[in-house]
Amino acid sequence: MSAEHPFLPELFAALPEGAVSSAAEDLKYYAVDQGPVLDLQLPLAVVWPVEVGQVQKVVRLAGQHGISVISRGAGTGVSGGAHATENSIVLNLERMNQILEIHPEDEVAIVEPGVINHQLNEAVRPYGLMYAPDPASYRYSTLGGNIATNAGGLRCAKYGVTRDSVLALDVVLADGSLIHTGHRTFKGVAGYDLTALFIGSEGTLGIVVGATVRLKYLPINSRTLAIFFQDFRTAAAGVLAVGKARIQPAIMELLDGASLVDIDQRMNSTLRARGGALLLIQTDGFGADAEADGIAAAVAPLGGTLYLEDPEEAHRLLELRRNSRGMDADLDTRVGEDIAVPRSKLVDYIAETELLAQRHRVNVRVVAHAGDGNLHPTFWIEEASDEGIERLNKALDESVELALTMGGTITGEHGVGQFKLRWLGQEIAPEVLALEHRLKRLFDPAELLNPGKAI
Amino acid sequence: MSAEHPFLPELFAALPEGAVSSAAEDLKYYAVDQGPVLDLQLPLAVVWPVEVGQVQKVVRLAGQHGISVISRGAGTGVSGGAHATENSIVLNLERMNQILEIHPEDEVAIVEPGVINHQLNEAVRPYGLMYAPDPASYRYSTLGGNIATNAGGLRCAKYGVTRDSVLALDVVLADGSLIHTGHRTFKGVAGYDLTALFIGSEGTLGIVVGATVRLKYLPINSRTLAIFFQDFRTAAAGVLAVGKARIQPAIMELLDGASLVDIDQRMNSTLRARGGALLLIQTDGFGADAEADGIAAAVAPLGGTLYLEDPEEAHRLLELRRNSRGMDADLDTRVGEDIAVPRSKLVDYIAETELLAQRHRVNVRVVAHAGDGNLHPTFWIEEASDEGIERLNKALDESVELALTMGGTITGEHGVGQFKLRWLGQEIAPEVLALEHRLKRLFDPAELLNPGKAI
Repeated sequence: MSAEHPFLPELFAALPEGAVSSAAEDLKYYAVDQGPVLDLQLPLAVVWPVEVGQVQKVVRLAGQHGISVISRGAGTGVSGGAHATENSIVLNLERMNQILEIHPEDEVAIVEPGVINHQLNEAVRPYGLMYAPDPASYRYSTLGGNIATNAGGLRCAKYGVTRDSVLALDVVLADGSLIHTGHRTFKGVAGYDLTALFIGSEGTLGIVVGATVRLKYLPINSRTLAIFFQDFRTAAAGVLAVGKARIQPAIMELLDGASLVDIDQRMNSTLRARGGALLLIQTDGFGADAEADGIAAAVAPLGGTLYLEDPEEAHRLLELRRNSRGMDADLDTRVGEDIAVPRSKLVDYIAETELLAQRHRVNVRVVAHAGDGNLHPTFWIEEASDEGIERLNKALDESVELALTMGGTITGEHGVGQFKLRWLGQEIAPEVLALEHRLKRLFDPAELLNPGKAI
Repeated sequence: MSAEHPFLPELFAALPEGAVSSAAEDLKYYAVDQGPVLDLQLPLAVVWPVEVGQVQKVVRLAGQHGISVISRGAGTGVSGGAHATENSIVLNLERMNQILEIHPEDEVAIVEPGVINHQLNEAVRPYGLMYAPDPASYRYSTLGGNIATNAGGLRCAKYGVTRDSVLALDVVLADGSLIHTGHRTFKGVAGYDLTALFIGSEGTLGIVVGATVRLKYLPINSRTLAIFFQDFRTAAAGVLAVGKARIQPAIMELLDGASLVDIDQRMNSTLRARGGALLLIQTDGFGADAEADGIAAAVAPLGGTLYLEDPEEAHRLLELRRNSRGMDADLDTRVGEDIAVPRSKLVDYIAETELLAQRHRVNVRVVAHAGDGNLHPTFWIEEASDEGIERLNKALDESVELALTMGGTITGEHGVGQFKLRWLGQEIAPEVLALEHRLKRLFDPAELLNPGKAI
């Protein structure tokens, strides 16, 4: 697009000073999120609206000129869902960051999309409440981004994913109109569940400009168990043992030896010295102590070493886990996965993954939200080479196929974005994908909202 | 339609002996569910498929002849969602009643739509598991019907509604094709959330012929508190007191004096003698005792009389509550509502409802899933008369408007069906309804799937 194209001047004219940039460094910075970059495209501009009306204006103007709109929060996504595409602008919602209402008695809050997950939790904590979904990026990621990807997190096994905590949405559609979906009551079945349809649609059906979320009770008590095992497979067997005891932890994370080494190196911790794999479990609520005791008894036959963590150390361990992926973007030489399998397949999946990594001579480390069967293997090679990257990609492909063979999914919580499109057709049948494309065109006939993502 | 119309003979020919009926008594019996009947229409036939292929056949054949298909489970719905319409057949899925798979380690089951809610619970109980959504009709209603309405129940406050327990669906679309949506893992974000879109769509977007559901852990312990108060408003204040204590009961039901009288009369109980309103609370899990103690302390200042129920009496009380609506169909002279309000509005809503009932000289009794702010007022008049029915309808209209004014919804869990269409436009904006109609036509261009329902 040449500088004379009328879109950019119109865009600058339509918004206040400082709300639009076409500076090279902004275009470069906001061109990508933390996902692997397959096809780097710079946006034509970056826009920072501060109110719904500005979002509508931008969407309408972009529509008139056939410009794609890539909505974006903090850019912590790891599937390339917020990568710029050809002939696009990036609509950055980070400045719409107000918590508009908190209703402690109704246990709901109304937020703008740029509110940081952590910020909401801090704001509702004095009322004895929490916003439950806690992606590892919770200190940085926005609720709008969490909603776009139906983000999960550590507490999902007990408290559900983002969809389970969002009651209503305000959404700007492709024609610039604003709609409201859902209800602010806990239950509500009037009309189709458009709220759920938008959640996880990665900005391809509309742009979320507001959300009414349900808050849950801050647990009165919590207990954290760090159980170190000799090897990862035994730790995974511990997950099944906890399930078999029918005890529902709030958090049940699994980290392999390579992940412990990685954390130790980056965070100056000494986890690997304590064992070859870590099963990190937190119980919470009024039954936290009894649940922790039950879990300790359930895993005892597996011979791990159990540490009862004091609250401070427990917090530190969980933060280490949250940082296990690092805040680094994926690279050519290192890609994190996000598959999920039925829980009974955890041990098998891990065993097979270790073998396939060996077979392709790539490194692998694995962390898992084990309570959900959601695994994050990270595959990497030491140095970039065409041959190495080919091996890496083969390992990725096989690890995803393996999950599907076991009845799993290609993405448990990160979203398909741009990067996982290559596997989507292996999970979703052609007729269902065709239906989803028809849905997409119903909402966005010109296909300008985050094109080439999610489906 | 005359007897010579080719559809009926073709339908009979297409299915095995005994799978189709056009007998007058069947047409009459299956013409309606338990919702109010505004416009009685007999179906042309009733069909009982036993396998997916038969459903596809019926849908295709009906499509060729422009016949509407009303899918139906046990017919316990109370919004007329399964009422026959003009030129329709009733597709009764009760004979597709097999639990196909139970995976105790994965905590999932795969079921046909005609499986009774209770039947699934009995089947998974030996594994220490339960299917959490428990509409009051759980002993009779089918999982397909529960899914069609996104049914709630007593345990929703803690365990969520039907949508929160359904992972994947098999759906026959209007063209007779079969699709599979969702995933059998607890988490999964590949593609749009079609599963949630079908749930609660009341058979208007497709016909659910199979479901993969997530099971939860049977609680190790439970405690039931029956707290009787002098009046309903104080009991409702008790709900807020429990919320303020940030204790999450599994069940928190509210029954007013008139409901207690009604139960006593029908069930030979003596509840009303114990107080003017009942707050019935169950805690469960490892923290059940501590939670019950906390709840008792939280409501103590309100001066109710607390009974700690032994398990048998607790079960009986909950069954009485589940029968509080009776299994009777709605009548001209008696209509049950299903509104929900933000929890802080419970007391106000109840006070206003009592006043409006007086104003219109109609009777009212109220039960509520109070933990969810979901109220079921039943309005009735003693004898049918045009003038009386007009007063009844005014009271209904006002009670619904009141809920909307308070930020509530016209239906918390029963569905819109046919009966609540009159209020739908007050809750959902025209542009959103228009969008939902476009969605409907995308899935069902000829509008033959349960027409005139839900949206």
